[in-house]
Amino acid sequence: MGVRKSTDYRKHTERVIRTLRLVIKNKPGNFAKIAKVIGDAGVLIGDVTRLRVDPNYIVRDVTVMAKAESVIDLLVGEIEALPGVRVTDVLTDALEVRRGGLLGTATRAEVSSLEDFHKVIMPGVYEACEYLAKTPGDVEVFTGKRHMVAIASNGTLMPGARQEAPEACLPLLEAKGLVLHQLSGLNAVPLVIALDEYYGFVNIITHIARTFGALMLTGIAPPNCLQIEQRLKDALPIPVFHDDSNGVATAVLGVLIAGLERVRKLAGDVSVCIGGCGVAGPAIARLLSAYGFQDIVVVDRRGALYKGRKGDEGTHKAELGAVTNTFFQKGNLRDVIKSKDVFVGISKAGALTKNMIKSMAKNPIILALSIPQAEIEPHEAYKAGAAVAVDAHTCATALSYPGILAGAIAAKTKHITDKMMIAASEALATCAKDIDAVVPPMFDTSVHQAVCKAVCDAAIK
Amino acid sequence: MGVRKSTDYRKHTERVIRTLRLVIKNKPGNFAKIAKVIGDAGVLIGDVTRLRVDPNYIVRDVTVMAKAESVIDLLVGEIEALPGVRVTDVLTDALEVRRGGLLGTATRAEVSSLEDFHKVIMPGVYEACEYLAKTPGDVEVFTGKRHMVAIASNGTLMPGARQEAPEACLPLLEAKGLVLHQLSGLNAVPLVIALDEYYGFVNIITHIARTFGALMLTGIAPPNCLQIEQRLKDALPIPVFHDDSNGVATAVLGVLIAGLERVRKLAGDVSVCIGGCGVAGPAIARLLSAYGFQDIVVVDRRGALYKGRKGDEGTHKAELGAVTNTFFQKGNLRDVIKSKDVFVGISKAGALTKNMIKSMAKNPIILALSIPQAEIEPHEAYKAGAAVAVDAHTCATALSYPGILAGAIAAKTKHITDKMMIAASEALATCAKDIDAVVPPMFDTSVHQAVCKAVCDAAIK
Repeated sequence: MGVRKSTDYRKHTERVIRTLRLVIKNKPGNFAKIAKVIGDAGVLIGDVTRLRVDPNYIVRDVTVMAKAESVIDLLVGEIEALPGVRVTDVLTDALEVRRGGLLGTATRAEVSSLEDFHKVIMPGVYEACEYLAKTPGDVEVFTGKRHMVAIASNGTLMPGARQEAPEACLPLLEAKGLVLHQLSGLNAVPLVIALDEYYGFVNIITHIARTFGALMLTGIAPPNCLQIEQRLKDALPIPVFHDDSNGVATAVLGVLIAGLERVRKLAGDVSVCIGGCGVAGPAIARLLSAYGFQDIVVVDRRGALYKGRKGDEGTHKAELGAVTNTFFQKGNLRDVIKSKDVFVGISKAGALTKNMIKSMAKNPIILALSIPQAEIEPHEAYKAGAAVAVDAHTCATALSYPGILAGAIAAKTKHITDKMMIAASEALATCAKDIDAVVPPMFDTSVHQAVCKAVCDAAIK
Repeated sequence: MGVRKSTDYRKHTERVIRTLRLVIKNKPGNFAKIAKVIGDAGVLIGDVTRLRVDPNYIVRDVTVMAKAESVIDLLVGEIEALPGVRVTDVLTDALEVRRGGLLGTATRAEVSSLEDFHKVIMPGVYEACEYLAKTPGDVEVFTGKRHMVAIASNGTLMPGARQEAPEACLPLLEAKGLVLHQLSGLNAVPLVIALDEYYGFVNIITHIARTFGALMLTGIAPPNCLQIEQRLKDALPIPVFHDDSNGVATAVLGVLIAGLERVRKLAGDVSVCIGGCGVAGPAIARLLSAYGFQDIVVVDRRGALYKGRKGDEGTHKAELGAVTNTFFQKGNLRDVIKSKDVFVGISKAGALTKNMIKSMAKNPIILALSIPQAEIEPHEAYKAGAAVAVDAHTCATALSYPGILAGAIAAKTKHITDKMMIAASEALATCAKDIDAVVPPMFDTSVHQAVCKAVCDAAIK
């Protein structure tokens, strides 16, 4: 059976992006020498921008991509050793793009005349507030509440997180807000909640939720995040979406639906091994099960989860072990993955080896979603025989949350159900198949409109 | 002595603004008949917009301004009685301008390529978060925190406020956010805190404050708002501005500085009567005193506040009575206002009569700031001999908070001091005098830039 190889992967894994600011003697051939030094160091060249030109010197910004910070350090030394070249700055692109923040305020009216002032401020604002106090349902119509999404975190899941500086997670919240607005048109408010403790976190969100049309949680460490998610879903009168669980699960299911069709297998027939049981693992297992996958085994650091496993008593792992692993498989990932059709990993870099992939069933599907680095790089997985292999760069939650939140808000529902998330995954798979891929183009707004419509329809029907 | 009359007032006080949607038979003269009916009802005509024209009918939106809702109701009946005219809708402009809300998200970057994705999201966002966890001071540089202002309320001070619907105050928060962004460039996040109780409110703000560069409080009922203001000013590491107290006081002082110069009196020589001791009254008394006013008497419903007044024990009124009213004046407003140079009212419509103004010193200055309707309309105050008379339509906090917050943020200070607020008032007075008025043009951004600079300088020096 001839299964096409996927092209949904990047060949290169250079992830340290820096911009070198160079002052170069203005002489033909000088830049070629620099380019050669960069190439010889195994470093990729991105954009090259001239900042200043004078008869003697040229100032250029050169973006370079390397596998590690240390490679950049060595490269800078080698460039400086060239005659007529100085490196005046090494800029971190991931920081530079964030200077001043990613999000700001857009105003949807202007106040520039006395008549504007009367309508918008005095006495108009008192008339509006008094009307809404009597008719609170119309807050959805005459304020921005309905389309305003709070993106909340305490930052505890972020790398290097420290309790003294929860605001260090703001870049995550801003980036998700940027993507949300760009892809769905919804508005976003990042909110850092400086509390690790479950009751306090829930209490704060509960008392500010009336400002918003929906809530997205992200970057919160387990097990608190699971309790927080559940409690807020029960308590709040607005849709609650936990991106690190619901968002990942929806994107994963979308890729699997498209991937299984490519390898001509059916969800009910295949066996799935989920590596990792932190935030996303349980949500993936639950959503795949709701979709119709029958044979799912979740593996954590201690091996396969199963009903009655010692040490899991009273935890979410006990629950999960009881509803998955029908055949009571035991052992570690190396044992469990044998003959499996699908691997979904949210564990750690290097957790999956080529030999493990070779031990899987024919045409295995590999979702290696550990961040920032995958369990195995997709191009390595393909070498080991994977029919489909993606990492978190392509199977990202940016595929799911914009459309799902927009769909839930459009449907005026307060619950985002499994049915709605499955509809989102199916819409993603359909968009992917349209371009003969397993992942649809992430920045194409028509994809997110399709997800929004599918989710809204599923909520209403 | 010839004192010029101020022109800083509106002649008309029609504050009910409605848009009538009319279907009119397409025949010359028909609109003239409608205009006559409107004029005869004592109602002003604003914008007239044609929505549709066909050979038989024209659909027009006609904005009308009346003194009361009942006048509009009568007018609609009279228009409908005209042949060939139907009123199909009566729209409330103060609500229509708010359809969908006044505020949204502006994105300051775009994610549309794999390179953008790497920088902004994966792995860039993890690199940024990890860097900021180590270097939290740079959160001010690489996120939007510094210029993001939370505008928080529980809505308890708003007309018709009900505990079940605190979100009815969102129009106030959005309007202030709109003005803040338009006039200072700062970003704004409205936040409804569904809690009347002091400790809970403070607790919530304290735990979300790291998201923001400054906090503005508004629309919170006394006495809680005074406690909340004080506690948050002490506790938070960011500037806290209470618009209903600090904002009003700064605008009032600005008008008084310009007004006193016009009537050639000195702050240290004049006597001031403040009518109302809710949220703004105490703040005005305190700021005027810090500026150099010596003779200030505050009057509440029970009459003049003085040291040791019965019933005030343990309240903010006892404190205020002890530091004002040097001459132990007693009695109600009618008694106290005699021979005073300045009246500042934050009480209720109709509290000040022409006879009271006539009993004041020569060339009195009247700030009648009760909302939504003044203690006395400015044009009535002028008839009674006022040298300067303004209401809350001209002496509005929109004059003060944009520049003060921008100045405090620019100065990187965590306290907004009396010195900074006085600098703001002086800047406002200077801008007003430049155009020979007592109030500067509210929507001229150069005014707010001048306030910002003055506040920043005062914070640093």
